Amino acid sequence: MKLHGYFRSSAAFRVRIALNLKGLGAESVPHHLRHGEQRAPEYLCLNPQGFVPALETGGAVLRQSLSIIEYLDETRPTPPFLPAAPLDRAHVRSLALVVACDIHPINNLRVLKYLRREFGADETVIGAWYNHWIGEGFQALEVILQGDARTGAFCYGDAPGLADICLIPQVVNAANYKLDLTPYPLISGIFDRCMALPAFAGAHPSAQADAE
Amino acid sequence: MKLHGYFRSSAAFRVRIALNLKGLGAESVPHHLRHGEQRAPEYLCLNPQGFVPALETGGAVLRQSLSIIEYLDETRPTPPFLPAAPLDRAHVRSLALVVACDIHPINNLRVLKYLRREFGADETVIGAWYNHWIGEGFQALEVILQGDARTGAFCYGDAPGLADICLIPQVVNAANYKLDLTPYPLISGIFDRCMALPAFAGAHPSAQADAE
Repeated sequence: MKLHGYFRSSAAFRVRIALNLKGLGAESVPHHLRHGEQRAPEYLCLNPQGFVPALETGGAVLRQSLSIIEYLDETRPTPPFLPAAPLDRAHVRSLALVVACDIHPINNLRVLKYLRREFGADETVIGAWYNHWIGEGFQALEVILQGDARTGAFCYGDAPGLADICLIPQVVNAANYKLDLTPYPLISGIFDRCMALPAFAGAHPSAQADAE
Repeated sequence: MKLHGYFRSSAAFRVRIALNLKGLGAESVPHHLRHGEQRAPEYLCLNPQGFVPALETGGAVLRQSLSIIEYLDETRPTPPFLPAAPLDRAHVRSLALVVACDIHPINNLRVLKYLRREFGADETVIGAWYNHWIGEGFQALEVILQGDARTGAFCYGDAPGLADICLIPQVVNAANYKLDLTPYPLISGIFDRCMALPAFAGAHPSAQADAE
């Protein structure tokens, strides 16, 4: 397998965690997003969106981190990223999607570039934007986690899964503009427990070969 | 089942299509998003994000349209929303996620409100923003669909599935600021074929009881 990524990409970070949890190795192919390497014609052939991650496996190119992670879970079931019962699976997927749909895309590099270019947004304005969407998402997540008996040491029960895989890179991103995490004690606790695991720690941006 | 929605919500539109394709009925509970009804305390108990859709079923509340749709597919397998082979499932999920992660959230009502409030964006500026992100997503989708032998009358083969369920509401949204769809002939063709099906036509915003 080849994982096309970038050390700072939190979507690639998710896939790195997933590979580590499954005990899978993948050759790392970094693309420097801030230098625009993801727009190189050869890479656009692999992923016409010009986004990382993309996973080359079984003669195919898989795109979109969540679909890659579900693929890894379907083809390597142990340890599972989702519980067995459909209602529980829906719960875990919905936690993951709060991050993957409702926080991450709005704070993506291309969106911040648009704000700078078209609205003349400076770093203070960008920081307010960035933390606003993380704050809205984390506030809802904290309430959901607090109100659900299935919350354990991790987002669901006592083993990390799909929701943690999405949440932890977002918590790392929250440091970019120094978001205060004290209103989110459950999220913070889950973060600490995840980062104590080699699968998460080894996937951290700072641990990647292309880290700056 | 009770579906909490709003006629204009394209995430609720996805779930309406999914229910129709599975031949399932659900009591419709509309929440007028532009009047802020999704922020009512009773609704926030059901969904702390204050978003629609939410599906009440089996004594649980399911949130996030994609997790609801996967739940419906896991519990009512016919007709399937995803193919059987993991690589194909990943492909279909990735098409759906281009819409669900990389287009829809950036154009959501709350984001447009932020642009108006914090950047003083007028309707011309909002329209440019809106169509920019749809255009980027549709351009990549069109290339992916064109280059993939699995593309058929629908996004995957000759029956509608998860990718079409996400794509069609986004094509309907593209009319909001009159995006020119001629650069996207495959997407346009799939849209026409989907809208010829009662499951899609009956889920259209204009066909809902709360439509204005």
